[in-house]
Amino acid sequence: MSGFQNIVLIGAGNVATQLGIAIQNTGRKIVQVYSRTEEAAMKLAEKLNSAYTSDLGKINRDGDLYIVSVADDAVGKVAAKLGMLNGMVIHTSGSVAMEVLRESSANYGILYPLQTFSKSRKADFSNIPFCVEANSNENLQKLKGLAESLSGNVVEIDSDQRKILHLAAVFACNFTNYMYGAADDILKGSNLDFDLLRPLIMETAMKVQQMNPEVAQTGPAMRGDKRIMKEHIELLEKYPEYRKIYEILSERIGERRGEEGIMV
Amino acid sequence: MSGFQNIVLIGAGNVATQLGIAIQNTGRKIVQVYSRTEEAAMKLAEKLNSAYTSDLGKINRDGDLYIVSVADDAVGKVAAKLGMLNGMVIHTSGSVAMEVLRESSANYGILYPLQTFSKSRKADFSNIPFCVEANSNENLQKLKGLAESLSGNVVEIDSDQRKILHLAAVFACNFTNYMYGAADDILKGSNLDFDLLRPLIMETAMKVQQMNPEVAQTGPAMRGDKRIMKEHIELLEKYPEYRKIYEILSERIGERRGEEGIMV
Repeated sequence: MSGFQNIVLIGAGNVATQLGIAIQNTGRKIVQVYSRTEEAAMKLAEKLNSAYTSDLGKINRDGDLYIVSVADDAVGKVAAKLGMLNGMVIHTSGSVAMEVLRESSANYGILYPLQTFSKSRKADFSNIPFCVEANSNENLQKLKGLAESLSGNVVEIDSDQRKILHLAAVFACNFTNYMYGAADDILKGSNLDFDLLRPLIMETAMKVQQMNPEVAQTGPAMRGDKRIMKEHIELLEKYPEYRKIYEILSERIGERRGEEGIMV
Repeated sequence: MSGFQNIVLIGAGNVATQLGIAIQNTGRKIVQVYSRTEEAAMKLAEKLNSAYTSDLGKINRDGDLYIVSVADDAVGKVAAKLGMLNGMVIHTSGSVAMEVLRESSANYGILYPLQTFSKSRKADFSNIPFCVEANSNENLQKLKGLAESLSGNVVEIDSDQRKILHLAAVFACNFTNYMYGAADDILKGSNLDFDLLRPLIMETAMKVQQMNPEVAQTGPAMRGDKRIMKEHIELLEKYPEYRKIYEILSERIGERRGEEGIMV
């Protein structure tokens, strides 16, 4: 097993929780959990059988790895308060540059698991892409060793690429979920159950596991079926915001169809 | 087994193909396939071991069920050319009213499978919601019998509800797939592989199999993280159309967060 036997987990949110459990399951030890809320720190520490603190001044300074896994906009602030540590310091954020960790250790890097985490769903790490980056080749290899013990899908990604990846993930995950929510709202307005759409949602995601989204595109806008689009826009009269989204996205799908000369 | 032993399939596209195979697998007989393209009719007829025609005037008039499964905007035109038939006539479209079939038979209805079909993917019908509607209770029961032999998920839906369902499906499937495509485009611009997002896409769909989309919403807009949103909008400079979509959807997710007073 590659290095990192005494790990300090800085954060107790969704990512920290799932990652802490997964790391502990590899046989490594989480020695301490920090959270600004004592209760959150204690709760996760109980699960991991580790010490905890809600005071950054009392961070265990003998760790060989510090994982900063807090909200993106707090990573820099927390890192600035750590002081210089001997162990390696990494964060797990998709959008924060690696260099914010420069003042925390001579050895630093990123371990970004590209997934959406929830408290109520156990994450299966084995298939999750882990994006790694470090400030030296030696540190990169150590970090890859850790990542490879968690997932079969480890990729080297630099900070610029990671930002792009995070942006793309907003479309593929957050905006997609917004579309699910819009569908749910529209159904509710006619007393229809969201259950009716669940198999369709699964199949839509499963299709692009093999195909490219471009090839998988279907629907009235793709077929250029103006009658249905007009009817849908009328049905959306009660929902001006969804109507606007319907119009914009249908137009875009239609343009793309035109660009590529696809006839369906 | 409930009625319908001699079935005429009018159409040879994705839905007709998958539905024809599934119906034949229940032990019923597809006696004839019609398509306006002879080659398509012949190809599907070969699979089903049935007769075929590309001439609506030569439709077999002894069927006990006629399934009109053609493009939404062609259903009415095709129905008008069938003349009055003794068997029941149904269509499979989400957006076309049942009444377009009134001149084709005294017995008519709808069998709308709520799913996205592709030629290259075999559909698993057992879990697909089948929405049924008919012009009499007797016809409805017969149609339900057929649907229940195909799927464990059969629901009575009237034409107005079916239109809403179809509209909601555009959001949950077509617009969702557009978001996958946007993510793919953004990755390509930085030589990143869409494979990196596939596990995230699956998990996003799997989350809402149990949760409601409202509860599953994550991301910068949901957290109100203005720094990241600003950075993302800058990264989208090359993609004005995606930038516009990013701004609109982030604003909507933010508003919704405000409405519900959710703090993440």
